[in-house]
Amino acid sequence: MKKLLLLFCLFTTGAYAQSTDSVTIRKIYNEILTNSPSYEWLRQLTKQIGPRLSGSSGAQKAVDWSKQLMEKEGFDRVFLQEVMVPHWVRGAREVAYIQNGKQKITVPIAALGGSIATSPKGIEAPVIEVKNFQELRELGAEKVKGKIVFYNRPMDPTKLNTFEAYAGAVDQRGNGATEAAKLGAVGALVRSMTTAMDDNPHTGSMRYATGVPLIPMAAISTNGAELLSKSLKETPGLTFYFKQNCETLPDAKSYNVVGEIRGSEKPDEIIVVGGHLDSWDLAEGAHDDGSGCVQSIEVLRAFKALGIKPKRTIRAVMFMNEENGLRGGIGYADYAKKNNEKHLAAVESDNGGFTPRGFGIVGTPEQRANIMAWKPLLAPYGLHEIGAGSGGADIGPLAQQGVVLLGFKPDPQRYFDYHHTGIDRFETVNKRELELGAASMAALIYLLDKYGL
Amino acid sequence: MKKLLLLFCLFTTGAYAQSTDSVTIRKIYNEILTNSPSYEWLRQLTKQIGPRLSGSSGAQKAVDWSKQLMEKEGFDRVFLQEVMVPHWVRGAREVAYIQNGKQKITVPIAALGGSIATSPKGIEAPVIEVKNFQELRELGAEKVKGKIVFYNRPMDPTKLNTFEAYAGAVDQRGNGATEAAKLGAVGALVRSMTTAMDDNPHTGSMRYATGVPLIPMAAISTNGAELLSKSLKETPGLTFYFKQNCETLPDAKSYNVVGEIRGSEKPDEIIVVGGHLDSWDLAEGAHDDGSGCVQSIEVLRAFKALGIKPKRTIRAVMFMNEENGLRGGIGYADYAKKNNEKHLAAVESDNGGFTPRGFGIVGTPEQRANIMAWKPLLAPYGLHEIGAGSGGADIGPLAQQGVVLLGFKPDPQRYFDYHHTGIDRFETVNKRELELGAASMAALIYLLDKYGL
Repeated sequence: MKKLLLLFCLFTTGAYAQSTDSVTIRKIYNEILTNSPSYEWLRQLTKQIGPRLSGSSGAQKAVDWSKQLMEKEGFDRVFLQEVMVPHWVRGAREVAYIQNGKQKITVPIAALGGSIATSPKGIEAPVIEVKNFQELRELGAEKVKGKIVFYNRPMDPTKLNTFEAYAGAVDQRGNGATEAAKLGAVGALVRSMTTAMDDNPHTGSMRYATGVPLIPMAAISTNGAELLSKSLKETPGLTFYFKQNCETLPDAKSYNVVGEIRGSEKPDEIIVVGGHLDSWDLAEGAHDDGSGCVQSIEVLRAFKALGIKPKRTIRAVMFMNEENGLRGGIGYADYAKKNNEKHLAAVESDNGGFTPRGFGIVGTPEQRANIMAWKPLLAPYGLHEIGAGSGGADIGPLAQQGVVLLGFKPDPQRYFDYHHTGIDRFETVNKRELELGAASMAALIYLLDKYGL
Repeated sequence: MKKLLLLFCLFTTGAYAQSTDSVTIRKIYNEILTNSPSYEWLRQLTKQIGPRLSGSSGAQKAVDWSKQLMEKEGFDRVFLQEVMVPHWVRGAREVAYIQNGKQKITVPIAALGGSIATSPKGIEAPVIEVKNFQELRELGAEKVKGKIVFYNRPMDPTKLNTFEAYAGAVDQRGNGATEAAKLGAVGALVRSMTTAMDDNPHTGSMRYATGVPLIPMAAISTNGAELLSKSLKETPGLTFYFKQNCETLPDAKSYNVVGEIRGSEKPDEIIVVGGHLDSWDLAEGAHDDGSGCVQSIEVLRAFKALGIKPKRTIRAVMFMNEENGLRGGIGYADYAKKNNEKHLAAVESDNGGFTPRGFGIVGTPEQRANIMAWKPLLAPYGLHEIGAGSGGADIGPLAQQGVVLLGFKPDPQRYFDYHHTGIDRFETVNKRELELGAASMAALIYLLDKYGL
C-alpha cells in the first residue's frame, strides 16, 4: 500500500510538473507571438546594416548593434570576445560569358569566398563539365589541362531534408578548385547549391590545399549552369570567360557578442543559445543567419518579460565568422575552456527563420532520451522531429567539452532558394515563422534549465 | 504452434506490405519532386488566366484550361458538371478615407463579396468601433443609428493554427452588415482577416439576412484599421467616407471540371481529390486555391507516370464557386446522389501550397483509426498531424452520403498573409512545398485505394 501511495505521489507530481510546464510553455509562445520585437530587430540588422562578411564595416556595425541591443534589453552582462577573422573581399562584381562561336552570352556568377582573383583581364578557356571528382580524375590531366572545370552535379531534389541534399553536393564547391588544379585546370566553376532554377549565383566558402596551384573559382546560377551544359553538348569547343576581382587581406580583429541572464541557483552552469552575426557580402543575411541572432536575443528578452528566472546562466551568443572560418565558434570554445566555464548545453539556430519542426541532438543516448521525453510538451507546437541530428557549426567546437548540442530544425524547403545570394532578404522571412522559432527555442531552454540533463 | 505460425505469417505479411508501401510512397515522392509539371501549371492558371471569381470570364477560362489539361494528360474520362453560380462583380475599385477635421487620409478598403454598392456619391458618416456583436448590441440603436459600424477584433495571434484564429474572427465579416443594420447603421467596415500588419485589404464573402435592410460593407487593411482606431480615440467625432461600386448580377452558368482514372477492380468506388477553381477577383488565387487544383491533377498524373493502376476510380475535381456560394461542392454531391455513385473518400487541398504537416479526418472513430495506422508510412515525409480535423468546404456536402473526408493540412503560418488579397500571387508559392503537398496527397490516396476504409 505504501508503495502504491508512493507511486501515486510520484505519478501525480510528474503530472503536476508537466502541467506547470505546459502552462509556462504556453505563456512563452503567447508572449513571443504577441509582443516580440524580433522581426523589427531583424529589419534593423538586414536593412539598416545589411551585408556583414567578416572583417567588413557591416560586421563591425552588427557587433555594435547587437551589443547595444542586449544592453538596452537590460541583460545582466553583455560583453565582447575578441577573435581574429579572415578578411576576404569581393571587389568589383564579376563578369562572365559563354563564347559560343560569335555568340557571347552573359551568365551570372559569383566568386567563391576565399578564391583568388583572375588576372585583371580575366580568363578565357575551353570548358570541361563533370559531375564529381571521380569523373574528373578519370578524364585525367590530358583532357583537363588548360581548361575551366565545370562541376554540374545538382543537389538531389528527392531529399526531403534539403540540408542532406546540400551535404551531398557541396564538396564540389569546397574542394573543386584544388581537384581541378591538380590536373592543370586554369579555373573552376560550380553549379549553385540550390534546387531552385533561377539567375542567382550562390556564393560560399572554398579552400585551397597546400602544394597545389591556386586557381580562381566561382559559382554559376542554376539557369546559367543549365545553359552552359546545353551549349557544351551542342558546341564542345566553346569557351568560357570570367573575371573576378576578389582578394584575401590580412586577418582582421572582430568579436563574438555575448549577453547573459545570470542563473539564480547555478550561475556557473551555462546554457548557450546562438546564431552567427556574419553573412555573405552579397546577402542581407536574413535567414542566414540574422534570424538565428534575433531569435537568440528574443529568448532572453521573453524570459525577462515573463519573469522567468533561470537557475542556470542563459547566454545569447552572436558568433562571428561562421561563413568563412568559424573563428567565432572556435574562439568561444577556447574562452570557455580557458576560463573553466561549465556549459550544460548549446542551442544553435542557423537553418533559417522558418516554421519550427524540431531539434537535432548531439549527445549521449541518455541525454538524448532525456530531451526526447519532453516531446509531449513540445509536439502541440509542431515540434515533432526531436532526436539524433546535428547541432550547429558555431557550437560544434563545444562538443569536445562534453556539451550537449542542439540544432534548431525549421522547415527546410525554402532555405536553399535564398542561401548565400542577394535574395536572402528580410522580405523572405515571415514574422510568425520567425517568432515561432524563437518560442520553440525558449521552450526548450526553459526545460533544459529546469531539469538539466 | 499452428497459431504461432499463423501469427508469424500475419506479422511478416504485414511487414512485407508495409515495406512495399514504403517503396511505392518513396517512388511517388521521387516522381513528383523530380518531374512534376504542377508548378508550371500553377503559373499558367495564375499568370495567364489570373483572377477567376465565379461568373467571370477568368472562371470560364479556368474551366476550359483545366479540362484541356486533363485531356492532354490522357485521363480516362474528363467531363464538366454544370452548376449555376452567383455572379457578383466589384466594378471600379473602392475609394475610402478618414475625414478628421480638415485632414483627409486615404485608407485601403475592398468591398466584401455579396455586398451592395454605396450610393454613387458614396457614404460619409461617423464611426462606431466595436470588437463583437455583444458590444454592438449593448451600445444599442441610439448610438449606432446613422453610423458606420467598424468591427475591429483582430485574429488571435497566439493560435498556432491560424485557421482557428480565422474562425474566431470571421463572424464579423460574415454577419457584420446585418447585425449593424438591425440597429440602424448605414454601412459597415471590418478589419481584414489576417495577423499581418500591412496595406492589403482582404475581401471575402458576407451575407444578408431577410427582413433586415441591406447596407454596404467593406474590409479595411490592418494598417488602415489601426489608424482608424487610433484616430477615433483622438477624435471620436471624425467621419469615414467610402464608395463602392459592386453589384450582384443574375446567376451565371458554370462548371465543376472532373477528370478520372478508372479503377481496375472496383471502378464504381470513387475516391475524390480536389480543390476549387474559382478565386477572389482581386487575387491570382495561387494559394487559394490554384495550388489545390494543380496538386489534385498532379496526383493522377503521377499515378499514370508511375504505372500505378488504382483498384478504385480516382477523380480529380476542380470545384467551382467555393468562395461565394459553394454551388460546385453542393452540385457535385447532388450529382453523386442522383447517379447512385459510391464514394469511398474525398480529399481536399484548400489551405495553401505550403509544406505538408498532415491530414484532418472526418469519419467514424474506426475509419479514423484505420487512417491513423498509416502514420509510420507518412511520418518520414513530415506528415505528423494525422487525426480528427476538418475536411474541406467543397467536399463537405458529401459527408451526408457517409463519405470519409480528408483535409490536407499544410503549414498554416503564411496563409492569411495572402488570403483573398492582391498578393495571393504565384510568386508566394514555393515549388518544392507545392510538390510535397501533391506527393502527400498521392501517398494518402494510394493507401486509401489499396486498403479501403
